[in-house]
Amino acid sequence: MSSSVRIGVVGATGAVGPVTLALLAQRGWDDVRAFASARTSGTRVPFGSRELVVEEATPDVLGAGDLDLCFFSVGTGASRELVPHALAGGATSIDKSAAFRLSDGVPLVVPEVNGARAAEHEGIIANPNCSTIQLVCALQPLHQAAGLRRVRLATYQSASGAGALSMDRLRAQASEDGNVTMDWDFVGDESEEESKLRAETRKILELPELPFSATCVRVPVLVGHAQAVWIETEEPLSVADAHKILAAAPSVRLLDRPTPKDAVGGDDVLVGRIRKDSAHPSGLALFVVCDNLRKGAALNAIQIAELALAREPEAART
Amino acid sequence: MSSSVRIGVVGATGAVGPVTLALLAQRGWDDVRAFASARTSGTRVPFGSRELVVEEATPDVLGAGDLDLCFFSVGTGASRELVPHALAGGATSIDKSAAFRLSDGVPLVVPEVNGARAAEHEGIIANPNCSTIQLVCALQPLHQAAGLRRVRLATYQSASGAGALSMDRLRAQASEDGNVTMDWDFVGDESEEESKLRAETRKILELPELPFSATCVRVPVLVGHAQAVWIETEEPLSVADAHKILAAAPSVRLLDRPTPKDAVGGDDVLVGRIRKDSAHPSGLALFVVCDNLRKGAALNAIQIAELALAREPEAART
Repeated sequence: MSSSVRIGVVGATGAVGPVTLALLAQRGWDDVRAFASARTSGTRVPFGSRELVVEEATPDVLGAGDLDLCFFSVGTGASRELVPHALAGGATSIDKSAAFRLSDGVPLVVPEVNGARAAEHEGIIANPNCSTIQLVCALQPLHQAAGLRRVRLATYQSASGAGALSMDRLRAQASEDGNVTMDWDFVGDESEEESKLRAETRKILELPELPFSATCVRVPVLVGHAQAVWIETEEPLSVADAHKILAAAPSVRLLDRPTPKDAVGGDDVLVGRIRKDSAHPSGLALFVVCDNLRKGAALNAIQIAELALAREPEAART
Repeated sequence: MSSSVRIGVVGATGAVGPVTLALLAQRGWDDVRAFASARTSGTRVPFGSRELVVEEATPDVLGAGDLDLCFFSVGTGASRELVPHALAGGATSIDKSAAFRLSDGVPLVVPEVNGARAAEHEGIIANPNCSTIQLVCALQPLHQAAGLRRVRLATYQSASGAGALSMDRLRAQASEDGNVTMDWDFVGDESEEESKLRAETRKILELPELPFSATCVRVPVLVGHAQAVWIETEEPLSVADAHKILAAAPSVRLLDRPTPKDAVGGDDVLVGRIRKDSAHPSGLALFVVCDNLRKGAALNAIQIAELALAREPEAART
């Protein structure tokens, strides 16, 4: 019975929280509470056909022992502060921030790719960066078939990846004011987004030395991340075989030329433009698009939770 | 005397034509007529402090023998039809369409890169694709220093690259309707834009076999194209040396993280994010941005004309 699992959604008024609530309701979970910072606590958020009053996410409330499972879609700092309290209170925590992703003992999970790792958790399971999730969904089946030797990608990331305020800013601006930016913090010559994408991909694929270069770019699109990807493989891989492999891959849907608008509201990672890399004999190029708020965040986290609870989604609906 | 050169600007009411007129006026050319299709002929366009009445661009008018130099910023079909008439009438034609770019006997010129080729023309000099121009301005100095072995890039191309109507469409849409698309014609598994970019880069750099792969993407930005580029070189090239070389390159300006808005209205090709390609020991990554209507089109064409006329811009102002 889903009602036996007491769920908290922390960050319920951000970009990802409302999607998490909508998906939880759809999937039949019903013992759900919504939490956010003091700024929006007391407001109401939709949950299926009803509404939840948002509670303030304090260490005391999250650690009170009346939650079994907590989804965190808050900033890295807030996750660092709050997750330990939820844990202490007995709640398995699915954290969507970067706080714990690379920590030993914290599985970093995309269920289709390395779902078995979820069982190894010690209370926290980390949800990868939105960009990482869609990338590894496309790369893993190709890696299994031919061995990944090298990965390069340029991203087209939407405003929603930067949170609800960025979405509001995009909505408020004239379309002709749109720009292409790199609005992340930089360490040395790389943005944190680029470093994360490499480190997380290596951890999930269990290829700690994978040669990997990303240029991460924000574009004036509301929802949906795209990636222009080049890979080289150890074994030759024809375009036809790559098509076949990706057509059979879980959560992947092939489309000739996928765009963010094609992905929005859907659960699939869209892969298209699969072709020989005209710059390298053992290379392939592809274009990967996903709804960064769903499979890139909320949906993946819920799938992790369902794995961790060893429940099938169907069981949750009864 | 600039007044001795009788200039026609064909496509005066499109995206590039008005920029061409503005730059010609700025640079002291004054015997200038504006042409466009029947749809907009009869309208007026700004030219410096005065206005020109737009004349219809017909074969007869362009071939009448009273033009010395013609700038064409019209579609490939219109260029194919009209340029031969202008030529027959004695006008050297600087064509910005793809009609003649890869033809033998037609120099494809970026003055800073292969300006000497302009002298070889037989009446037509082609202006490269906007994406090609900014790319070769950044690549050529690196190639001279270390030898280009391989080029990959993903582009972020603005609406203005698709013409004035696309600009109007972008302006008219809500910012949240912005999408990332590949709105070019495709031949096989490549867009024509991608094939052009490779073929033109090879012709300009005189590297007919250069391994080269592009993924061309349109983003909801009004003006300014960006490119995430990876190169491999024959000789090792340090980041510090690449910085030095590009800082000294003509028309290149270094900026940490250039954006399209940084480039708009300026003449420079902005290059930033110069760093080791973390996926390859002899690779570099960089980010290249340019105002596609100026250096990417109108300015480059005027610079070609000035070369072809063996005039210095200063002479034109007297």
